[in-house]
Amino acid sequence: MQGFSKRTKTAKLEWLVQQYFHNDAQAAQIFCDMAHRDPALQKIIDGFSENTVSNFLLPYGIAPNFLINGVTYCVPMVIEESSVVAAASAAAKFWQTRGGFHVEIMGTEKIGQLHFNYTGDVGVLKTLLPELTTTILHETEALTANMQKRGGGITGIDLEDFSDREPHYFQLKLRFETCDSMGANFINSVLEETGRILTHFLKQKVGIEPTIIMAILSNYTPNCLAKAWVECPVDSFGTGGAALAEKFRKAIRIAEIDTFRAVTHNKGIFNGIDAVVLATGNDFRATEACGHAHAARTGRYKSLSHCEIKNNMFKFELEIPLAFGTVGGLTTLHPLAKLSLAMLGNPTAKTLMTIVAATGLAQNFAAVRSLVTTGIQKGHMKMHLTNILNHLQASEPEIQAALQHFVDKPVSFSGVRIFLKK
Amino acid sequence: MQGFSKRTKTAKLEWLVQQYFHNDAQAAQIFCDMAHRDPALQKIIDGFSENTVSNFLLPYGIAPNFLINGVTYCVPMVIEESSVVAAASAAAKFWQTRGGFHVEIMGTEKIGQLHFNYTGDVGVLKTLLPELTTTILHETEALTANMQKRGGGITGIDLEDFSDREPHYFQLKLRFETCDSMGANFINSVLEETGRILTHFLKQKVGIEPTIIMAILSNYTPNCLAKAWVECPVDSFGTGGAALAEKFRKAIRIAEIDTFRAVTHNKGIFNGIDAVVLATGNDFRATEACGHAHAARTGRYKSLSHCEIKNNMFKFELEIPLAFGTVGGLTTLHPLAKLSLAMLGNPTAKTLMTIVAATGLAQNFAAVRSLVTTGIQKGHMKMHLTNILNHLQASEPEIQAALQHFVDKPVSFSGVRIFLKK
Repeated sequence: MQGFSKRTKTAKLEWLVQQYFHNDAQAAQIFCDMAHRDPALQKIIDGFSENTVSNFLLPYGIAPNFLINGVTYCVPMVIEESSVVAAASAAAKFWQTRGGFHVEIMGTEKIGQLHFNYTGDVGVLKTLLPELTTTILHETEALTANMQKRGGGITGIDLEDFSDREPHYFQLKLRFETCDSMGANFINSVLEETGRILTHFLKQKVGIEPTIIMAILSNYTPNCLAKAWVECPVDSFGTGGAALAEKFRKAIRIAEIDTFRAVTHNKGIFNGIDAVVLATGNDFRATEACGHAHAARTGRYKSLSHCEIKNNMFKFELEIPLAFGTVGGLTTLHPLAKLSLAMLGNPTAKTLMTIVAATGLAQNFAAVRSLVTTGIQKGHMKMHLTNILNHLQASEPEIQAALQHFVDKPVSFSGVRIFLKK
Repeated sequence: MQGFSKRTKTAKLEWLVQQYFHNDAQAAQIFCDMAHRDPALQKIIDGFSENTVSNFLLPYGIAPNFLINGVTYCVPMVIEESSVVAAASAAAKFWQTRGGFHVEIMGTEKIGQLHFNYTGDVGVLKTLLPELTTTILHETEALTANMQKRGGGITGIDLEDFSDREPHYFQLKLRFETCDSMGANFINSVLEETGRILTHFLKQKVGIEPTIIMAILSNYTPNCLAKAWVECPVDSFGTGGAALAEKFRKAIRIAEIDTFRAVTHNKGIFNGIDAVVLATGNDFRATEACGHAHAARTGRYKSLSHCEIKNNMFKFELEIPLAFGTVGGLTTLHPLAKLSLAMLGNPTAKTLMTIVAATGLAQNFAAVRSLVTTGIQKGHMKMHLTNILNHLQASEPEIQAALQHFVDKPVSFSGVRIFLKK
């Protein structure tokens, strides 16, 4: 298969259906029917990626009643997993009458790395850093001027010496403030320019040209950090509140001491986080990679959230690095990302961090509360049954009969089909 | 806002547009226009989640020419980030003539945990484990019979003692084989039943009832593992192949010794992996959480891939835990997930692990090769520019003029708008 990417969308789909679907017209139709009715808008969506032949549709839901730092939000969530939006909504409602979610932004620093080989004297390199820094700041001004006007730019440059672990390998680690943009393009452009500047600088100063290995932002941003928490007296959980709060605390503690639990626990947090990240046109792979590395920062992978009960006060908190943009990229180009941001009052990047951190905490609260009370299977199996019934286009009386029949039986696709046939 | 979830979809959207969009008819229209033309299919998509008011459309692309363990696949990819599908396709094509991708499945074990408090004697508990195991295997048979017919079921039960870190806290850790299903519902049902069995068992045997804290699968599956690799003589990289291979090796090595690089490096691997996971109706949050915890298993978060050059042979490999289903759940219900699996020849879960691992490795290869050669900004900025031009509905001559104008200038939304106005 040669020159595939250069074919038209129609030709690509034709090839696909011919090669992998025996020219099945029904398969072709399913792919085609996913297209947006407006060709101009479809062209925009196709432009986000390459070799596109269709759209993948994910349900777009909303979780109202989110009281965060005193403001009530309706949070947009894109997720294909059942119970996530319901759980977030339930947690939002619970905390709405208990002071809501509190979020503090601990920092907004982004990181970029210029990786290079240098065979000269390390001491000289270190001595030259202040002059090199001045040179870089000066010579990247054409690229940073606009960001500086908005209050951002390069905020610091460090030299990292890894030559003990890989011969002659060093890094320039640049710190950035990128305001309301995620900053990837800005940071990468500055870094590639910094590579040229460094090469020229070292050639002039020490007569040795470094080899630039690569120049790229880091998605690990431990100082672009949000801390979210909720708190209330244990009595405010209702009858048996103290016991429930203690069981909840224990469940969180378990995720702090056992990696097998921690992974699932944090996965639940990201159920909430990724749903908002997707809905607002941000990058969930970057958010996940950074968050999980943060979870492992002590040398053992553990829970991102923490719970304490002191003097009958229940406090539940989440500390998580989050790097977002609310201008540029998909946030401007994807029509629903744009509406998601409008729904949230066109937030700054900091405010979006706030909202996402609160949603992650809400998700974790609702999931763990379910786990330590009714268990999760009851709700899950009912949702699963409803999905299967929808898929089999069951009538309303059939749906009611199935819901009753399967109330105490395991749900499977084939089991439901057999039941409906009878 | 009370009883929101019980409103109809139309009523939810009306409320949203009234509360957060000043009743803007255009916003309402954008939400509505995202709906699928077939109401029955739309109902299925709405059923995946809750409080749905629209669909979020992601581009569905394909990467042909993937030669994996001797079979040529066309890999479906759902991703909103530019260059990912192009990179996977380029890597697939490169390796197609160099032996393709090799993947070995090292295991398919899933894990479930029953967390409980027990105040009795620990020694007695340990002594009772064999009898408890037999009881659990016997009394869960109604739930496991079908899975056993397919060759799966409970494969082992361990007792984990955490009482030194949290008073009276223990775990039953169950191992499972779930064949071609992801197994979450199966495992959770078995675990909840195991909780009832354990409670009854301990009451009878030692007169002490444990407190069940929670029962749920673990998304950390280090023994559900794929190893993918590619290899070729360095000369086969073409002119300057040895130097390129060495620079590539160094870039991978950097991600093994520096967490700031490792996070971005692994993020790139997940760009490829999540795109296939989404396209096949699997759960990318589970895949991410497990993979990143695996990256931190040595006590330091590092690269999931590894590169070696020995006797002029270049070998590049990826070891990653992947837990998928190819039957049940969304794989059956989402029309495009179903077609994605059909495109891949309706694979077993093991074969899907194989394909996904190869895609992750391909992604990593292409991204790092770009980084150590041309840098990534050139390609990125051109894509970004094209996206903006599509969004502004530029004509073909305008597009050509803009591509020429911005070839050596930074690309921004406002910059392109100003250029088009002129």
